[in-house]
Amino acid sequence: LVRVTFGMPDPAKRDQLRRDEASQQTGGRITLTVAEQKLDSHLRKLKLQEMSAAQFPPALHFFKAKRLIEKSPVYKILQKMPKGAALHIHSTSMVSVEWLVKNVTYRPHCYICFTWDNSVRFLFSDRQPFPRWDCFYWQLLETLRARLGDPTGFDYSLMQHLTLFTESPESEYPTQDIVWEKFEKAFIVAAGLISHAPVLKDYVYKGLQELYYDNIMYLELRCGLSRTYELDGTIHDKVLTLKIFHEVTQKFVQDYPDFLGARIIISAHRALGVSEVKAAVKEAIQLQKDFPDVVAGFDIVGREDDGKTLWFFREALSLPAQLGSMLPFFFHAGETDDEGSDVDQNILDALLFNTSRIGHGYALAHHPLAKELSRKGNIAVELCPISNQVLKLVSDLRNHPAVVLMSEGHPLVISSDDPSLFGTSGLSYDFYQAFVGIGGLKANLGTLKELASNSIRYSSLPANLKNKLYGMWLKKWDLFVAKNS
Amino acid sequence: LVRVTFGMPDPAKRDQLRRDEASQQTGGRITLTVAEQKLDSHLRKLKLQEMSAAQFPPALHFFKAKRLIEKSPVYKILQKMPKGAALHIHSTSMVSVEWLVKNVTYRPHCYICFTWDNSVRFLFSDRQPFPRWDCFYWQLLETLRARLGDPTGFDYSLMQHLTLFTESPESEYPTQDIVWEKFEKAFIVAAGLISHAPVLKDYVYKGLQELYYDNIMYLELRCGLSRTYELDGTIHDKVLTLKIFHEVTQKFVQDYPDFLGARIIISAHRALGVSEVKAAVKEAIQLQKDFPDVVAGFDIVGREDDGKTLWFFREALSLPAQLGSMLPFFFHAGETDDEGSDVDQNILDALLFNTSRIGHGYALAHHPLAKELSRKGNIAVELCPISNQVLKLVSDLRNHPAVVLMSEGHPLVISSDDPSLFGTSGLSYDFYQAFVGIGGLKANLGTLKELASNSIRYSSLPANLKNKLYGMWLKKWDLFVAKNS
Ligand SMILES: [Zn+2]
Ligand SMILES: [Zn+2]
Repeated sequence: LVRVTFGMPDPAKRDQLRRDEASQQTGGRITLTVAEQKLDSHLRKLKLQEMSAAQFPPALHFFKAKRLIEKSPVYKILQKMPKGAALHIHSTSMVSVEWLVKNVTYRPHCYICFTWDNSVRFLFSDRQPFPRWDCFYWQLLETLRARLGDPTGFDYSLMQHLTLFTESPESEYPTQDIVWEKFEKAFIVAAGLISHAPVLKDYVYKGLQELYYDNIMYLELRCGLSRTYELDGTIHDKVLTLKIFHEVTQKFVQDYPDFLGARIIISAHRALGVSEVKAAVKEAIQLQKDFPDVVAGFDIVGREDDGKTLWFFREALSLPAQLGSMLPFFFHAGETDDEGSDVDQNILDALLFNTSRIGHGYALAHHPLAKELSRKGNIAVELCPISNQVLKLVSDLRNHPAVVLMSEGHPLVISSDDPSLFGTSGLSYDFYQAFVGIGGLKANLGTLKELASNSIRYSSLPANLKNKLYGMWLKKWDLFVAKNS
Repeated sequence: LVRVTFGMPDPAKRDQLRRDEASQQTGGRITLTVAEQKLDSHLRKLKLQEMSAAQFPPALHFFKAKRLIEKSPVYKILQKMPKGAALHIHSTSMVSVEWLVKNVTYRPHCYICFTWDNSVRFLFSDRQPFPRWDCFYWQLLETLRARLGDPTGFDYSLMQHLTLFTESPESEYPTQDIVWEKFEKAFIVAAGLISHAPVLKDYVYKGLQELYYDNIMYLELRCGLSRTYELDGTIHDKVLTLKIFHEVTQKFVQDYPDFLGARIIISAHRALGVSEVKAAVKEAIQLQKDFPDVVAGFDIVGREDDGKTLWFFREALSLPAQLGSMLPFFFHAGETDDEGSDVDQNILDALLFNTSRIGHGYALAHHPLAKELSRKGNIAVELCPISNQVLKLVSDLRNHPAVVLMSEGHPLVISSDDPSLFGTSGLSYDFYQAFVGIGGLKANLGTLKELASNSIRYSSLPANLKNKLYGMWLKKWDLFVAKNS
């Protein structure tokens, strides 16, 4: 171990051991340039201040920490940092609810209906919509707003239907069940707005812009490819959703040439049956053939703790291999704290079905064998700290199991999961939590550099585009370091 | 990895992987007898019920979970289970506060003083005690109680000074600083009672009894060896404290021959300076020579986050080797969530100074190199889950980093740290948290068997006594299994 002379461990050897351990962590083997070292010690000083303040944001619920984080000098640097790619975001929650309410619901022909379970539905229509089983009475929002005395309060109430964000998260969401119920409800509310074809176009553009403004250059979006509709009630094919996404992305890249693009991971909900997921896999295989630049792969989404396991869908998940397709999987797995349950085994099955990355992998650190397989196979974990906290897997982020993964240099990328639901935008909030809370004082600029470059390395892009993106990112990175050191 | 035929992983190989992983966990390699298997499936059924109930005790603050745990059928079995040894308990908190108040403070000549900081002091004296800097006015408790209308309420208020236990832990202890302040205060309050020589005798006996009733057979007690005093103000030498402990233990073993005994780990507080700790180490070396059957080793105690590091005391800690003594160390280390701080490095230094076990080791899972050293060196972690939760390192015990250690079969023993402060008694509460919360559904009877036998294996006992204790324990274990399967 370390030579002990006269009872005293050799201080030089002790330092060596400490450095050896530090080199194992994420970014621990990166040699920093002089400029990077300068920025690194600046960041360390700022982080120390934050750790000794009365309130430590990663220890608080994010909804209470948000304002503190926004004031944090560390956060402000992270905002400016080129973060590479966002690899785990869901399409129904990529744009802030302020925009959805203040812009989209103010558009003409927007109808609203208040449901019996205290929720709302939206619908764009050029005539009075028919009653539906969950919606008997549709009102034109324009008319309703004209009659209301307090449009600000009303708009705020609409926003509350679209996000989990609240001032009192502990009392509003006492259990995982309750927070997940609200979570799934919010998606349904948003759907009526987003799946209106003209809105979807603006929505995707706006979503890319929010990422771009947070210094992100590429996106892989989990998307269920819901059908879009028109004012006259026409319902389009799923392919149109894909086409809209593709066209808007192309337009966006034209407008912002230092943004590389976006791809879709087609997602089926685990509430479906095996035969429906089979159909979804087949469809994804076809769409990937038809749109190889747009479709990155396939995933099964929805709450794991409540839902069917990956193994339950094994017939569907073995279809690509049977059909000679190379459709990659990007499975959510291990988003649970129910150790030893069947759900807890999703991670191993994700790996057995050759997943390309693991969404969340919250339970991975508790599975030594799966962890080894993931590491050896270079299967990165998509770490979404704020999502895990808001969905009540962990309260103090210093206890997030990713602390273990980060200390071992496990392949990791940072993402935001459902930014609009959690009241975030871009990746900076999640990077803050990973850097300050999960990484602690150990995490340094090398950690950040590796996390950002990991997002390119573990993306689904072909090698040539990875290289291109990496080159673009590195230029921005060096500029960022030069400006901030 | 696993042969994939026609896109489908081989179910038999998949099962093999799951078993391989399960075999890595604590107790994963123990082959259960038929009777043990029967008890194991019974326990599993009970645990499943507990996990699906509305409130899951390990996810709640222990002070709110305590009553639920006491009703739990799993807990009732754990109470009956022979748990081996308690290796991490502090002498000032080994007996329930009910006994201290209802028995000790009712003894004659007991004086009380109310301090300016809303605390109290106790003193036994055959005359009116002199005022001290912190205590101007001493009242005879007997007289005071006779004047009070509500002795029950008064006694309850005295208990509150001696324990952290409260119905509203979140509001009373909003931060680590506040809970630690109360923690250190409670020790000072207890000291006046416990260090009265006649009380100490009963106290030690009572403490051993509480362990014995919880089916524990051996104790290693952290003890600062405070000097004891008599009614007439005589203050005894530290050696008497050791002698009292030894004599009472011998008496107890006579009375309860299936209890093996108890040893002391002499503890110095980290608030001391280097030269004082040097003196304490020298004294411990001498006492170990004089009482080899009683003194197990040496430790430095007190809050790590606030205090000096082990490395700060390196001159003192290298003394035994310099003086040719084999005084073993049993260091508290890594009882922190401040990652990357100097305090966070205590674990590595504990290992470099050849610690025999690690007290808490809360941060160990975040230190891959130290973890490897601890595993290879067979340095067991003394896991005290309730202590970590009450002292606010973690709220939901499913996020305790020992989940990682347990899944990897890291050397572990379970202990209770400061039972009277946390409102526990014996080890059953902590075993419950480790078995149900930290171990989850994965933990089984093999886990319990290994944890219990670990407490013997990693004790400081010489080989012959370890074997004797193991034999005694195994007999009890088999009886326990036979009775409960
Ligand atoms: Zn997700
Ligand atoms: Zn302790």
